[in-house]
Amino acid sequence: MVLVFLDPAFPDGRPADASQPQLLVTDQGATRGDGIFETMLAVGGAVRKIQAHLDRLAGSAEALDLAIPGEEEWRRAITAAVSAHRSQHPPASAADDELVVKLVVTRGVEGASTPTSWVQVSPAGAAGRRQRETGIDVILLDRGYDSDVAERAPWLLLGAKTLSYAVNMAALRYARKQGADDVIFTSSDGRVLEGPTSTVLMAHVETSDGGTSVKRLITPQLDSGILPGTSQGALFAAAKAAGWELGYGPLEPQDLLDADAVWLISSVRMLAPVNRIDGTEIGTPSVKKELTAELNELFAGIQ
Amino acid sequence: MVLVFLDPAFPDGRPADASQPQLLVTDQGATRGDGIFETMLAVGGAVRKIQAHLDRLAGSAEALDLAIPGEEEWRRAITAAVSAHRSQHPPASAADDELVVKLVVTRGVEGASTPTSWVQVSPAGAAGRRQRETGIDVILLDRGYDSDVAERAPWLLLGAKTLSYAVNMAALRYARKQGADDVIFTSSDGRVLEGPTSTVLMAHVETSDGGTSVKRLITPQLDSGILPGTSQGALFAAAKAAGWELGYGPLEPQDLLDADAVWLISSVRMLAPVNRIDGTEIGTPSVKKELTAELNELFAGIQ
Repeated sequence: MVLVFLDPAFPDGRPADASQPQLLVTDQGATRGDGIFETMLAVGGAVRKIQAHLDRLAGSAEALDLAIPGEEEWRRAITAAVSAHRSQHPPASAADDELVVKLVVTRGVEGASTPTSWVQVSPAGAAGRRQRETGIDVILLDRGYDSDVAERAPWLLLGAKTLSYAVNMAALRYARKQGADDVIFTSSDGRVLEGPTSTVLMAHVETSDGGTSVKRLITPQLDSGILPGTSQGALFAAAKAAGWELGYGPLEPQDLLDADAVWLISSVRMLAPVNRIDGTEIGTPSVKKELTAELNELFAGIQ
Repeated sequence: MVLVFLDPAFPDGRPADASQPQLLVTDQGATRGDGIFETMLAVGGAVRKIQAHLDRLAGSAEALDLAIPGEEEWRRAITAAVSAHRSQHPPASAADDELVVKLVVTRGVEGASTPTSWVQVSPAGAAGRRQRETGIDVILLDRGYDSDVAERAPWLLLGAKTLSYAVNMAALRYARKQGADDVIFTSSDGRVLEGPTSTVLMAHVETSDGGTSVKRLITPQLDSGILPGTSQGALFAAAKAAGWELGYGPLEPQDLLDADAVWLISSVRMLAPVNRIDGTEIGTPSVKKELTAELNELFAGIQ
């Protein structure tokens, strides 16, 4: 892993040894999960959707009252870290050239006024790439919140990507104990929300009387307390340009069961087709594979 | 600060320099708030309620599927850390002899199978001690969950004291912006829950026709998704022995407004009398001070 701290004294960031301790035990990232992060994918050395991730990081920082380094500093540190990884570990092949680029900001040490900010770069794991091909089994789990809470209770930080991911991780462990791969959270009022580390997408193909078919790509409404997905946003833009219609929830679990295809989309694993939800086969076999291939191609074309 | 890591190679723990980095950036405590903690108070070198804290730590570990060091290891490391602090920084006076003892366990480095566990000891801050005397102003904030969710959704980890405290900290910042000191969370179905770092207590004094007065100490019911308070538990036992009646919710905000006194209780700040809730004066002036003094004495006597 390559590690670069953002540090005003180092214009391209301060490289550090990730195999050595680098954080104080009093860092509020470690003691309270008090901070924010982004996880991005670099393909062939280019970070995908970097502006969308930097924008979301800035939004998370605002929600947490965190003063974080500016965009230019992040871009320079990211470039330095990705370059360092590629020169230290040249990719074996073009197909193997995927790196995970993580940006982390914590509130820093208790009592101090500066956050701790870093970029870490590591190879993309095989598990995520495999799930793009094989698809995943998912269970529905109650997130406990109703779909209006985000607007009335900003202190719950629902639209921010914070380091406080213990519940997300617990939900994934719960799914694995049930033999599933992943989770789709639902609200206490029965709406489809998001995955612990992904956004929910579904598609319908409607063929009109005249034989023209219309493809519709749908995601839960963004104001229901979910994290705005950078991948969902980029794919929606690409799908629209390719002639798809777009739709935003509210969605209920039954909508997922009725869809022609369902995916969990995220920056590193990308599109993971959902095979089963709570044991029920999902999608229309005749079109599911084709829709996945088409969206994969659209998503791969995103910068 | 004194820092001692739990380490099988060191029977009394491995002392480390808290002013130097000790955690890897890949530690899941820092990257996901994936871990648990306890905060205890040592007075005159003796840790108060140590068994209750170790029991709750074990309960949190179970909720998170974390295999943590055994009780004996914790006790030895705690003793070593407290002793080291007292010899390095002898207390100026007996009244000044309060230390905060924090136990932290993270899920460790990604991919590794051992958690990272440590004890840290530092002087108790002046702010908490001041609030015991002056009391606090509190606002009510919606926690977003209904009071039944803990039982139906164990993956939400509501009874566990996790490192994912970003929401607790955001709620406190929100209160301070409103000019208040602290928060009492309510459930989406209108029940009183807990503070971000404390348990809610209230008292009623009822004088019967014969002139006998009955004092009743009340706390929200434990199965409403709140953290079981070690201080509340210990004080309830002491109050019962001293002739108080005990009560458990459900409580609504109106019950707090009608109470003769309300406190937030926690291990380090101890009993903080609530002066105002959302701007409304709380308690019956004639008995509030006396009740606080009596409970302070009971609580101070706890081992």
